[in-house]
Amino acid sequence: MTIPAPLTGVVPPVCTPLTPEREVDVPSLIRLVDHLVNGGVHGLFVLGSTSEVAYLTDAQRRLVVETVASHVAGQLPVLAGAIDMTTPRVLSHASAVTAAGADAIVATAPFYTRTHPAEIARHFRLIAARSSVPVFAYDIPVSVHTKLSAELVLELAADGALAGLKDSSGDLGAFRSVVTGARAHPDITGFTLLTGSETVMDSALALGADGAVPGLANVDPAGYVRLYDLCVTGDWERAGAEQERLCALFGMVGAGDPARMGGSSSALGAFKAALHLRGIIDCPATAEPQVPLSGGEVERVGKYLAGAGLL
Amino acid sequence: MTIPAPLTGVVPPVCTPLTPEREVDVPSLIRLVDHLVNGGVHGLFVLGSTSEVAYLTDAQRRLVVETVASHVAGQLPVLAGAIDMTTPRVLSHASAVTAAGADAIVATAPFYTRTHPAEIARHFRLIAARSSVPVFAYDIPVSVHTKLSAELVLELAADGALAGLKDSSGDLGAFRSVVTGARAHPDITGFTLLTGSETVMDSALALGADGAVPGLANVDPAGYVRLYDLCVTGDWERAGAEQERLCALFGMVGAGDPARMGGSSSALGAFKAALHLRGIIDCPATAEPQVPLSGGEVERVGKYLAGAGLL
Amino acid sequence: MTIPAPLTGVVPPVCTPLTPEREVDVPSLIRLVDHLVNGGVHGLFVLGSTSEVAYLTDAQRRLVVETVASHVAGQLPVLAGAIDMTTPRVLSHASAVTAAGADAIVATAPFYTRTHPAEIARHFRLIAARSSVPVFAYDIPVSVHTKLSAELVLELAADGALAGLKDSSGDLGAFRSVVTGARAHPDITGFTLLTGSETVMDSALALGADGAVPGLANVDPAGYVRLYDLCVTGDWERAGAEQERLCALFGMVGAGDPARMGGSSSALGAFKAALHLRGIIDCPATAEPQVPLSGGEVERVGKYLAGAGLL
Amino acid sequence: MTIPAPLTGVVPPVCTPLTPEREVDVPSLIRLVDHLVNGGVHGLFVLGSTSEVAYLTDAQRRLVVETVASHVAGQLPVLAGAIDMTTPRVLSHASAVTAAGADAIVATAPFYTRTHPAEIARHFRLIAARSSVPVFAYDIPVSVHTKLSAELVLELAADGALAGLKDSSGDLGAFRSVVTGARAHPDITGFTLLTGSETVMDSALALGADGAVPGLANVDPAGYVRLYDLCVTGDWERAGAEQERLCALFGMVGAGDPARMGGSSSALGAFKAALHLRGIIDCPATAEPQVPLSGGEVERVGKYLAGAGLL
Repeated sequence: MTIPAPLTGVVPPVCTPLTPEREVDVPSLIRLVDHLVNGGVHGLFVLGSTSEVAYLTDAQRRLVVETVASHVAGQLPVLAGAIDMTTPRVLSHASAVTAAGADAIVATAPFYTRTHPAEIARHFRLIAARSSVPVFAYDIPVSVHTKLSAELVLELAADGALAGLKDSSGDLGAFRSVVTGARAHPDITGFTLLTGSETVMDSALALGADGAVPGLANVDPAGYVRLYDLCVTGDWERAGAEQERLCALFGMVGAGDPARMGGSSSALGAFKAALHLRGIIDCPATAEPQVPLSGGEVERVGKYLAGAGLL
Repeated sequence: MTIPAPLTGVVPPVCTPLTPEREVDVPSLIRLVDHLVNGGVHGLFVLGSTSEVAYLTDAQRRLVVETVASHVAGQLPVLAGAIDMTTPRVLSHASAVTAAGADAIVATAPFYTRTHPAEIARHFRLIAARSSVPVFAYDIPVSVHTKLSAELVLELAADGALAGLKDSSGDLGAFRSVVTGARAHPDITGFTLLTGSETVMDSALALGADGAVPGLANVDPAGYVRLYDLCVTGDWERAGAEQERLCALFGMVGAGDPARMGGSSSALGAFKAALHLRGIIDCPATAEPQVPLSGGEVERVGKYLAGAGLL
Repeated sequence: MTIPAPLTGVVPPVCTPLTPEREVDVPSLIRLVDHLVNGGVHGLFVLGSTSEVAYLTDAQRRLVVETVASHVAGQLPVLAGAIDMTTPRVLSHASAVTAAGADAIVATAPFYTRTHPAEIARHFRLIAARSSVPVFAYDIPVSVHTKLSAELVLELAADGALAGLKDSSGDLGAFRSVVTGARAHPDITGFTLLTGSETVMDSALALGADGAVPGLANVDPAGYVRLYDLCVTGDWERAGAEQERLCALFGMVGAGDPARMGGSSSALGAFKAALHLRGIIDCPATAEPQVPLSGGEVERVGKYLAGAGLL
Repeated sequence: MTIPAPLTGVVPPVCTPLTPEREVDVPSLIRLVDHLVNGGVHGLFVLGSTSEVAYLTDAQRRLVVETVASHVAGQLPVLAGAIDMTTPRVLSHASAVTAAGADAIVATAPFYTRTHPAEIARHFRLIAARSSVPVFAYDIPVSVHTKLSAELVLELAADGALAGLKDSSGDLGAFRSVVTGARAHPDITGFTLLTGSETVMDSALALGADGAVPGLANVDPAGYVRLYDLCVTGDWERAGAEQERLCALFGMVGAGDPARMGGSSSALGAFKAALHLRGIIDCPATAEPQVPLSGGEVERVGKYLAGAGLL
């Protein structure tokens, strides 16, 4: 399908359920997609960081996109990450996910190498030139160790190289510069501005974002859709209350002991444990070499669910 | 072939010559390998950072390993990088490069994700368990944004999970901890300790390293072999003089204007320009999205070559 | 005076006007304070980062506090930075600024040293134990290279060690954790939560902040007071418009050429150039070793003022 | 006294013994200085990072310099740190320590602020212009979060702004660029090049350093002097053995549990515990807010001493 311009609403980065052997668990993935669609979400983002894209082999990535794209069958747009170190490798993924049915691709700045704004611009222009679907930039400094500047994003948006931005920088002030800049720019229309934040989605929408890509929406899609609707209608007081309920739920990302595991293991482990506790996926396993949550840590996740009225 | 334990000497990270269309230039790659072998090097490391591994597609990576492994045909060991974000993706590359003829694989800690020492240990153990060839750890914090601790490397060496270390951390004191620790450890034998430094290779050998993986050895393999031989014979004065000649030559990595390009573009561009000026490769192109050196910058590279007696 | 608990409203970090010889320009400082008070601000923060505290000698710091405290004479609260590397040095400043008339002190985590959360907690507890006035924590990772966690701030607030927080981290999601946590905590009352952001002050107030410490309020105090009032009355639409006007004005911090100077020189130079252009201070000089704005860069600042209706 | 140009040999950064009340323990400080002088050291560096300069009040800093300078009374040169955030504050310290008897001052790049190479150059030039004694640059990125480039140091050395460099960057390759560059530069004579490394002092001397400023020399000055002498005579094999003995002893800096304390607490706590165990200082206390070593951790320090033949 042709992706709306701009794309609005809640577009969860879909978790990738795995079997105990760490293969993609297709039936669980389909149940998760149904859970999200039934929750009212407006699009799906597969192969993002929350999807454990960094851990999935090429075959697994393809299987994920094929499964989700064929299952939703054009009911709602499917964006897919083409996440790799540099342009040639991103282009390989872009071809693969487009062939598998993605309606748009999402790419980061180069990483692993020592890069430069001129190279980042060239990277996105080359991807856009060779992609048959719209290209979204994914600003995620915690992973790629550079930050996309507002100037760069606006320049690429004005050129038509970029169709949108997913901002996972955590820097709402910088995101606002892009939002305001894009609204004011004569050559930018239909550019999609999505926040990756779970905890200040209301703030981002208040200042003009089109939507959000919150990882926690895997666990509570209906909550994030409710929050989106409250924001759109300008009911900021009830939006704030719903956002705070979701912030409390988001505390689950700290369930894993930082002395035993990294932040990805804890956060992604918690999302999957929650989906397992809610009966949506069959197995809470995360990909190697992540450290699994202990029994006690899973119990903590359960308490967050209970506290949010989800168990 | 079975890789020596320890592997000693100069093991250049082989540049990957590209055509103007950014395909692997096989004839140039073979000429480069001959140039290195004729220079006296003791092994070859393909698909390292200097090889632009981060920019090569899977097909290009495979072609590089096949070309080099079949050309050297067991005359000297070929190590190959299996560089990707996490365990499952590294394992895919490990299988591919081993099938293509690599005698050992080289892997970094996970990157892009937020990781933890326990996960890094698990990562290397899983790779070792599933690899049919020895595994070297590649410590390159500038790319992966974590540093391997001496404790972790020694633990993995004692377990037999690791066969060696390539240290590109720039921290010689930390490297010495591994060298001294490995020499003293009752359960560690034949562990290979290689420095990635171009500029303090003499210091690293003096404190017990087995060899070096200097990117600049692409340009002047005979110089690095001469330096190695002087170190091995304990002629530290002449070694120092040769090292200083190579340090001066290494200045070429700053040929590119930092206002126009990143550090990878400048350094890798300079190595390739030098190989082109010396008549070894047909085209100095670097992979996208790197910024090419200007004519004036290439001239600067030429002056470094002339200064070192290489033109 | 006793500082309100919580302290609410706009509390500008007061610029420190200097003479061409880099001495404190007392008449200009008094005019600046009058400008702020006439603009309707609710408190003053002297010796913050925007005040160039890092550049002021002890004698200059004392003169600033004495001048401002005696001039405002209890009309509104005066907070003063006690900014130094570790506890004993912060305690010296705390005594000095309290003796000079400050109603509260503001301190960061230790810097220059390699520190730890347990040491940061101990640091604030020791300061609080020996201070005769309330202590605010100043979370400014860009300067001190650590981030105060929500857990730590809430623990210190519950203990009574901290009276408030000035958050200059740029991470609104993390700030919200403190705001929500403080509101919900049975042992925390009257704790002041201030954002340091110029550009998402409306968002911070919407999610429960008590006030703001925007450097740009030196230039347009009436604008920030207007924004505060609109937020307090819940008129988010007009608040958003006023915030966007101020965001555009804030663009002046990029007036200085990054090839010639650092971010502090550019931002602080722009604030002072604007105050000079508006006729409030006699000389736009910033402290050594900052690089002054060029004539053309000052003109750019003037255009930002004109664009915001301030010239 | 006039400081030699270059200054050569072992110049320990002198620990600052404290009483249990965290006042400077003058008798212990004098005993420590005697211990160092008797160990054969060639100069003393007071108010460096190892001296806990970041924790000492101005009065304590003055007392340290006065005590040491008057005690050594010109027998050997005394360098003193003038460590603070920016030029005006560094100048205050420079005056104070010079008045107290320092023969040279040591200053870092600006910190806490966001700086730029042009500002760093201006900073050192202003300090040099106003200092009555020679100025050494202190390159310590772990504390100030910028690295001095070889170009900048050589430019300032050629101008006469800098008399020397203390390199605590841990990057021996970069240090070599300065050493080689200074030796080759027609306008640089008598420039002092000191490494701050405890563990690769032999390597640094081999490549041309004039001397070293190892914190661990507080504990074993005779060992470092022996190492220096072996290096000067070119007996690299015995130098390597002595260096390795000192590397093993240096393991004490990890005595403190990283779950309980930061790196400064552990390293400085270990040095002071060792000096206390050796009977040189009366009390092992470190300054606030550092976390003290536990009894068990002090025992670990004792084992390191015993292993090195020092107990």
